[in-house]
Amino acid sequence: MANLEDIIYSAATYLLTTFAFLLAFAILRLQPINDRVYFPKWYLKGIRASPTHSRAIISKFVNMDFKTYIRLLSWMLAALRMPEPELIDHAGLDSVVYIRIYLMGLKIFVPITLLAFAVLVPVNWTAGALEQIKDLTFSDIDKLSISNIPPGSRRFWAHVAMSYVFTFWTLYVIYKEYKTTAILRLQFLASESHRPDHFTVLVRNIPPDPDESVTEHVEHFFCVNHPDHYLTHQVVYNANKLANLVAKKKSLQNWLTYYQNKYERNPLSRPTTKTGFWGLWGTRVDAIDFYTVEIGKLNEEEDKERERVISDPNAIVPVAFVSFKSRWGAAVCAQTQQTSNPTIWLTERAPEPRDVYWDNLAIPYVELTIRRLLMALGLFFLIFFFMIPIAIVQSMASIQGIEKVLPFLKPLIEIESVKSLIQGILPGIALKIFLIVLPIILMIMSKIEGFTSLSSLDRRSAAKYHLFLLVNVFVGSIITGTAMDQLKTFLNQSATEIPKTIGVSIPLKATFFITYIMVDGWAAIAAEILRLVPLIKFHLKNTFLVKTEQDRDQAMDPGGVDFAASEPRIQFYFLLGIVYAAVTPLLLPFIIVFFSFSYVVFRHQIINVYNQKYESGAAFWPDVHQRLIIGLVISQLLLLGLMSTKDAEELMPLLVTLPILTIWFHVFCKGRFESAFVKFPLQDAMVRDTLERATNPNLNLKLYLHDAYVHPVFKGGELERTHIINEEEAIMLVTTRRNAQKSHSK
Amino acid sequence: MANLEDIIYSAATYLLTTFAFLLAFAILRLQPINDRVYFPKWYLKGIRASPTHSRAIISKFVNMDFKTYIRLLSWMLAALRMPEPELIDHAGLDSVVYIRIYLMGLKIFVPITLLAFAVLVPVNWTAGALEQIKDLTFSDIDKLSISNIPPGSRRFWAHVAMSYVFTFWTLYVIYKEYKTTAILRLQFLASESHRPDHFTVLVRNIPPDPDESVTEHVEHFFCVNHPDHYLTHQVVYNANKLANLVAKKKSLQNWLTYYQNKYERNPLSRPTTKTGFWGLWGTRVDAIDFYTVEIGKLNEEEDKERERVISDPNAIVPVAFVSFKSRWGAAVCAQTQQTSNPTIWLTERAPEPRDVYWDNLAIPYVELTIRRLLMALGLFFLIFFFMIPIAIVQSMASIQGIEKVLPFLKPLIEIESVKSLIQGILPGIALKIFLIVLPIILMIMSKIEGFTSLSSLDRRSAAKYHLFLLVNVFVGSIITGTAMDQLKTFLNQSATEIPKTIGVSIPLKATFFITYIMVDGWAAIAAEILRLVPLIKFHLKNTFLVKTEQDRDQAMDPGGVDFAASEPRIQFYFLLGIVYAAVTPLLLPFIIVFFSFSYVVFRHQIINVYNQKYESGAAFWPDVHQRLIIGLVISQLLLLGLMSTKDAEELMPLLVTLPILTIWFHVFCKGRFESAFVKFPLQDAMVRDTLERATNPNLNLKLYLHDAYVHPVFKGGELERTHIINEEEAIMLVTTRRNAQKSHSK
Repeated sequence: MANLEDIIYSAATYLLTTFAFLLAFAILRLQPINDRVYFPKWYLKGIRASPTHSRAIISKFVNMDFKTYIRLLSWMLAALRMPEPELIDHAGLDSVVYIRIYLMGLKIFVPITLLAFAVLVPVNWTAGALEQIKDLTFSDIDKLSISNIPPGSRRFWAHVAMSYVFTFWTLYVIYKEYKTTAILRLQFLASESHRPDHFTVLVRNIPPDPDESVTEHVEHFFCVNHPDHYLTHQVVYNANKLANLVAKKKSLQNWLTYYQNKYERNPLSRPTTKTGFWGLWGTRVDAIDFYTVEIGKLNEEEDKERERVISDPNAIVPVAFVSFKSRWGAAVCAQTQQTSNPTIWLTERAPEPRDVYWDNLAIPYVELTIRRLLMALGLFFLIFFFMIPIAIVQSMASIQGIEKVLPFLKPLIEIESVKSLIQGILPGIALKIFLIVLPIILMIMSKIEGFTSLSSLDRRSAAKYHLFLLVNVFVGSIITGTAMDQLKTFLNQSATEIPKTIGVSIPLKATFFITYIMVDGWAAIAAEILRLVPLIKFHLKNTFLVKTEQDRDQAMDPGGVDFAASEPRIQFYFLLGIVYAAVTPLLLPFIIVFFSFSYVVFRHQIINVYNQKYESGAAFWPDVHQRLIIGLVISQLLLLGLMSTKDAEELMPLLVTLPILTIWFHVFCKGRFESAFVKFPLQDAMVRDTLERATNPNLNLKLYLHDAYVHPVFKGGELERTHIINEEEAIMLVTTRRNAQKSHSK
Repeated sequence: MANLEDIIYSAATYLLTTFAFLLAFAILRLQPINDRVYFPKWYLKGIRASPTHSRAIISKFVNMDFKTYIRLLSWMLAALRMPEPELIDHAGLDSVVYIRIYLMGLKIFVPITLLAFAVLVPVNWTAGALEQIKDLTFSDIDKLSISNIPPGSRRFWAHVAMSYVFTFWTLYVIYKEYKTTAILRLQFLASESHRPDHFTVLVRNIPPDPDESVTEHVEHFFCVNHPDHYLTHQVVYNANKLANLVAKKKSLQNWLTYYQNKYERNPLSRPTTKTGFWGLWGTRVDAIDFYTVEIGKLNEEEDKERERVISDPNAIVPVAFVSFKSRWGAAVCAQTQQTSNPTIWLTERAPEPRDVYWDNLAIPYVELTIRRLLMALGLFFLIFFFMIPIAIVQSMASIQGIEKVLPFLKPLIEIESVKSLIQGILPGIALKIFLIVLPIILMIMSKIEGFTSLSSLDRRSAAKYHLFLLVNVFVGSIITGTAMDQLKTFLNQSATEIPKTIGVSIPLKATFFITYIMVDGWAAIAAEILRLVPLIKFHLKNTFLVKTEQDRDQAMDPGGVDFAASEPRIQFYFLLGIVYAAVTPLLLPFIIVFFSFSYVVFRHQIINVYNQKYESGAAFWPDVHQRLIIGLVISQLLLLGLMSTKDAEELMPLLVTLPILTIWFHVFCKGRFESAFVKFPLQDAMVRDTLERATNPNLNLKLYLHDAYVHPVFKGGELERTHIINEEEAIMLVTTRRNAQKSHSK
């Protein structure tokens, strides 16, 4: 076990490393050539333009204004300076609420740390149980922790009392945060004058009708069942092939522009290209002519496909975006059940157009439940058995293993340098690759589960990742051994035994987790702000691939808050903090450094870098809250387990009460706030409808909504015009077609 | 362990006893004097009248028509003859669906029994593991059960295969039943032309408004937020005192009528009474004068109280029944969220007027969540620690115990007859009293939880009772010992150990549960049809207390299906059947006898006896379904536990799959059907609104709904008139009052 001095020494090392990263960032960000890497948000907003044209060649690439170097960390202040309302306006509510999670961490842990150091550290330090045991090596850290208190001591009352204080303080803070977020969300939704999703409902599982097409069926159904409110609807086309064609055409268009630019700059030689893949082989042809012809061909093909999609009734999936005359009508339709069969005509609030995940819209009910079952089983196996393939790789990575499996490699392996390389890197690599790929696997699993918006996909992936971290990183680090061993432990130990087993090991793992926080937490945040990968990628692209200004815009990869991967990791640090608050308070300052550092960095990033793909209005908060509660309950159960081995029976009833109170608090908060994140209240809808009628009486809603929910590939295409005509026709036919057909067929 | 012959012998005994009960019933029901005990339903429907007037004195009391005695069991056929639609019309959907649970039991267990006897009994019988073990006494029952198969035998494949067949068959039947019940419910709701609850929404937690009274506030809120649909509303008065006065007056009125009748029959002596309690002591006064004066006084008091309730704004609780112009409007309001704070303006479908539980309407949100927490804890302690008070009584009931606690009783106790009486009866009595009182305790707990309708109270009590039976009767009979011992077992054994411990004991307890089925199941049903308690009560009342025809009507106690106590007991027998189907199939015929016998008896009862207090439209079915699933999963886990001790590792994956599939099936069914029992679909609402507008265009809905949701004590009273006036006033004031007041206060 590490000594206190060791910890301080390595903390200093990591702090210095982190500071070096920050220094690198502070210098790199000032170079104009990196401008698009560190300030893409402003480019996308159109406020900043390439610094290419106005300055001297040298200052295009390197910042020569040395005054700016003096204020190296000024970006930190700048990041903190923008007030919250402006920030919401600038970066969206999702991002702002996301960084509020870090702020909440500070709000929770700063007072807890102060209290823990004022009360628990003296109580632990002066107990002196460890000194009484002969032949025991212990460090100062252990003297600071609960391990230093002899069993049956009355000093445990302090820990239990503090654990109550910590719990109530945490609950108070997360209650306030839930409330604030709910208010922010409602204000945010109210502040925008109108958004298509306010008026629109996503209708899924439209039942097939032998007499009518999907669009007629939808029209009739809503004309009958929402007669005063129904406005219009958009059907959804299965446009996968068309999307491919559009993407292909876009790439050809880029090449054409590139060669045209080239020719313009050097009109003497007409550029040529080869017809093969990426112009690398094939017959050499005139590039501009070649691409013009190719684009022409694609245009035809695209028109044909577009024609087919629009005219073929099988290309329409049984899903529609139904719009209403008022927010009230949409809110009513989204919250009610339409027919006596609750698996057809499913209505829900439409996601923002950007947020729609088009591929998942048309999954029937039975298939959906089967998919969820399979993915639940898949997640179980992923969490508990992921070590099997990795263990195979790792066993091969041991020298003996490789020599056994591949004996002919023996002479090569016996070379000392090769041997140490294999021993050092290979075992780590398999696990590292898996951990990098993991969020992608989880996202694919969420997609298979059939959620219809990007935001819900992110939320589901985060939930899965959280579970993974909990079982494999938290419990896995405490009960050493594979997850399978843990599964056996869980199955073969009793409900009272599990918290005991884990709880007892908790104080012993404090130094491990302190190191973990520094390696994984601090360093990762520093890497986040340096944006090393996007930096390299941008310069590579800029040098070799960028042909047009459009390409440069695309080479700039602003990214965004990766909620699915980052939020569960915050939760993990929260869990560490709350678990160790009553056990080894020394861990808390490290958590505080993590939270404050992250807060500043991410605030900087959402101001200058990130460009969110969608805006869900902080719809993820109930999940965040729930996971905080899970963390609290785990910490309480582990303290209970730990105490039960310390001859402190009289404290048990007090400790049992805590999780019950916490779970009750969760139920209370759920009832109090959750629906603000799920439903759109009728009163708010009515207020805003009335307001809009007064301020904007001439709004042509039908026109406004007309192409809001068109599949991206149709945007600005011909579909829309055809659609209008179709629609008018449909309205004319509303009352007649079905009857006419029916009387015909009889 | 009992022998097969013993079982057959005791089964015959119990069958004979049951038959004796039936015989008694068949004779008693034919006596005119018992007519009101065995056919109260027909009296209440007004189809049958007292047989007092037309016949000879003797035949008023005893049936002399001996021909009717010959067809003793004809009532069984008569009970089965009424077709289901007519039965729904006659007894209501709740009762019909309730007896369908028994029918479902037959549908599940008859094929399972046939299969089990055809496949598992031969497999078990011929295995002969028990015969190979020396010095083991075993009975024929054990030879028929899974105990007779040696560990590691390949015969276990038959049990696993059968367990799959049983599970799939059960799931198929309960799927069909869920579907049928959902259809029955929707048809039932559609068949009645209009019911007040179709148009009405219960609004709770109306926030206080400093400027307006509750009624104005409701009016304004719904005029603004449901402008096209709001019709009217009824506020709820806190009328507890008034209800007491009304009840008191009613009783005095009865006495007055009684004395008036007496005086009419014997005009010579004016009847006298004493002024004390029940006329038993006090000064002797003229009865008619006395009661006339008393009623006059009460009338005044009642008027004053009524005046106070109506005029005092504090007597109005923040709850209202809001009615809409159409079913569509009511359905929309009930299913949507009204304001951004989801704990105020809570809307839900109004229960039927008879179904409202008035006392619970006005509980604020925070209080409600605290009450639920306390009751959850209370239930936990009730289930696991109820034995403590009973054990105390029982320990005192042992001779040594009594002698220790009350040594002066020693001489008395030592008398042999007293001793045996105490030893024989006392221990049982304490438990028996508790078990009789238990449903009442559970109902009180449900009332404290704050549910607003009698039907939901019944459902909640049933859920609690089910849990109690599961832990204390099922597990408690298998792991002998108190529930506290079991709690320790649960806490100290691992997740894999618990099913093993219970599973291993399952085959050993077969004879115990067979006896239990006969004693508790068969006999209880026979007692149910004999109605011994209501019979005695009726005759006692008829002899001593009945004074007027009204009293005789009240002395007739039709009762009803006691869902809260009976349904969990059905579930218990279902659980026994499904657990033993693969283990000891011999138990199954006893279950079948129980279900078929119950079905006939309860069908007879709902036709001739029961008069339901409310009609919820089979809203309890999702609970029934859920508990069936719980039973199935328990049976699968126990089989898994049993098998894991039998060296059948290769069967484990197959057995683990079963509960996963079952739980998935539950999720599937929940999504597919549950909302039919919770929400009223808009399409159905619209169809029926349209239909009603066409068939009944002149329906004055406001008048129809006007006194639908008045507290029973106001029915036909003066409140209604005042209420109309108030309402008209309120409408006049809708747009003015608030502004006027506000400008006033500024």
